[in-house]
Amino acid sequence: MKRVGIGAYGITPFTKEDKKIESTLFESAKVLLENNTSIQKSDIDAVLVSTNNNSKYLSPVLSEMIGIQPKIAHSIENLCNSGTNSIVSAYSYIASGLADMVLVSGAERYDSPGQVLEWDNSRGEFKHPIFWASIFTSSYKRKYSVTDEQLSWIPIKNHKQAQNNPNALSKKTYLMKDVINSKKITDDLRLLDCSRPCTGSASIILASENIMKKITDHPVWISGIGQKTISAGFTKSESFNTMNSTKMASRTALEMSGKNISDVDVVEIHDAFSVCEPMALEAIGFSKPGKGTDLVKELYETKNYKVNPRGGLIGSGHPLGATGIAQTIEITQQLQSNAKNRQVENAQVGLVHNMSAAATSSTILVLEK
Amino acid sequence: MKRVGIGAYGITPFTKEDKKIESTLFESAKVLLENNTSIQKSDIDAVLVSTNNNSKYLSPVLSEMIGIQPKIAHSIENLCNSGTNSIVSAYSYIASGLADMVLVSGAERYDSPGQVLEWDNSRGEFKHPIFWASIFTSSYKRKYSVTDEQLSWIPIKNHKQAQNNPNALSKKTYLMKDVINSKKITDDLRLLDCSRPCTGSASIILASENIMKKITDHPVWISGIGQKTISAGFTKSESFNTMNSTKMASRTALEMSGKNISDVDVVEIHDAFSVCEPMALEAIGFSKPGKGTDLVKELYETKNYKVNPRGGLIGSGHPLGATGIAQTIEITQQLQSNAKNRQVENAQVGLVHNMSAAATSSTILVLEK
Repeated sequence: MKRVGIGAYGITPFTKEDKKIESTLFESAKVLLENNTSIQKSDIDAVLVSTNNNSKYLSPVLSEMIGIQPKIAHSIENLCNSGTNSIVSAYSYIASGLADMVLVSGAERYDSPGQVLEWDNSRGEFKHPIFWASIFTSSYKRKYSVTDEQLSWIPIKNHKQAQNNPNALSKKTYLMKDVINSKKITDDLRLLDCSRPCTGSASIILASENIMKKITDHPVWISGIGQKTISAGFTKSESFNTMNSTKMASRTALEMSGKNISDVDVVEIHDAFSVCEPMALEAIGFSKPGKGTDLVKELYETKNYKVNPRGGLIGSGHPLGATGIAQTIEITQQLQSNAKNRQVENAQVGLVHNMSAAATSSTILVLEK
Repeated sequence: MKRVGIGAYGITPFTKEDKKIESTLFESAKVLLENNTSIQKSDIDAVLVSTNNNSKYLSPVLSEMIGIQPKIAHSIENLCNSGTNSIVSAYSYIASGLADMVLVSGAERYDSPGQVLEWDNSRGEFKHPIFWASIFTSSYKRKYSVTDEQLSWIPIKNHKQAQNNPNALSKKTYLMKDVINSKKITDDLRLLDCSRPCTGSASIILASENIMKKITDHPVWISGIGQKTISAGFTKSESFNTMNSTKMASRTALEMSGKNISDVDVVEIHDAFSVCEPMALEAIGFSKPGKGTDLVKELYETKNYKVNPRGGLIGSGHPLGATGIAQTIEITQQLQSNAKNRQVENAQVGLVHNMSAAATSSTILVLEK
């Protein structure tokens, strides 16, 4: 199989602004092209747009705004992991030889229609993601005797780390008492346990090995890919305290890359809610079942940015279609030693975890220098 | 590059029924699996949904309805050529080695949000496709001195041919006077010049050469792929009487397949409106500029089903996300000598033309036995 890598990226601040999806989408693509003048726009032969927005034909719209006429152009949607689905699709266009350089741009507005799960009729009135998060939290706490205080390390760490990410939505740090005393949304979920929808966009360029030489001296290669869909409705899950799709996707991705979990230096975790971070760390194999919050506390106390250096979804904000791409950009920056005051020292191998709808589907990417 | 082919298909009648998108989508996938019992459902490692519907997470929903847990799952949208975009994406997953068997299912409801082009602000109030079709018709008639009577051969032929397609929306044939006297929608467009939105779905299985042997003895191979996006807004087109994206896509596809236009025995043309059929036939090279209607008349008079055997979009109906897949199924049936009373004799090579929004983007596929 051809080697496929990331040659450039563009990202802009995640906000609560009321902007058109087209303008939002264009922002990060514009920054990408301005910061990477070695890219010949006419070499881009595919444009994939990742979004949950209802506007149609956004890839030709973005292409026209940039001033290019690609071969392949379409939008991709799979709720919260639309971003990594688009990256894997771009990978396959390049690996198959149908394209040499693909622009993947993700964007969302704060009022994304992907936030309420119209399709899951098994959930009755409880269509908002806070309900699955609440059930997950309750189940996880009971199974592993984990306390609210232990779970609070996730928002504490991620808001803290977000302060070193200039594009993050969060502009504040919080103490444990702030998390515990934040508004109760359900019996098991507090306001500060939740990532927040926002307006934002993120773009990357994927390229084949040949064309990569023309773009950058510091490419980051995608060496492992794992994807798994378990179900659509989360009530079909075997368990509410483990992430099976994440477990299976990470096994596939690590196997493809020939790496072990101990080789991974830095990781982006899809912390849509506090409980997701320990659950995902456990599913991928970074810690034993029920011990994820201990790892998070330890990382926080030792100022180790290994997990969610940019602040995760809780700290950065969660513009659905842009999230998986923003996560991949963070790992790219880390591997390029370009992550400034959130840099993980000597990062050689990174991992991205992006999931949808109560981990009913997951993507794992392994990236290497 | 690995060889990728079509191993199975499922299609159901195109109607005006008011059904949920999930039920519509499931229908053709169900028929596909029922008619192809050699397919192990668990071998399907990717599910791509082609639609303009606003419902989210439809690929995991479809997967759960079928009872499978694929690796790759997402929806693809690019207005009217969403279907062939999904097929090309499936091709690339298989050719790259990320998947061996991909289910591509397209579906739309009669009230698809893809029918009104919210994004093309250059068009002011004239957002409905009838306005570009009207401008194309006017420009084409003026440039080549073509009459309304000559253009009427397209709906006459396509409604006629649709009578041999049990899934077609059209249940009637029309005479020239019916077309000419049908309701004037604009100065240049009559009701019978238009394809009609409808509810429908179509599914195909793409597979690698290895796995194909387990599925069918009569695969149809995708030997040529061409795609081109010129713009998003059609007012950026150089001309309103030629289809440049179609011209470029067909050149690429024929080159990839090593075939000449004279090798093509049967073709599906995206006749969203009457004028599109001659324009596309000319762009692809089946007839000289301005002479497309003569070819259509000749085919009609000699009862030759070469162009749009299933009745095209005008005869079959146009459920946006399903159209490109339905077109590909028709060519597959033709090459498998399985098209009953619309069979083109000894068809060896077929071509699919699927486009979006005033041919601002086009896909061409070349299929072979």
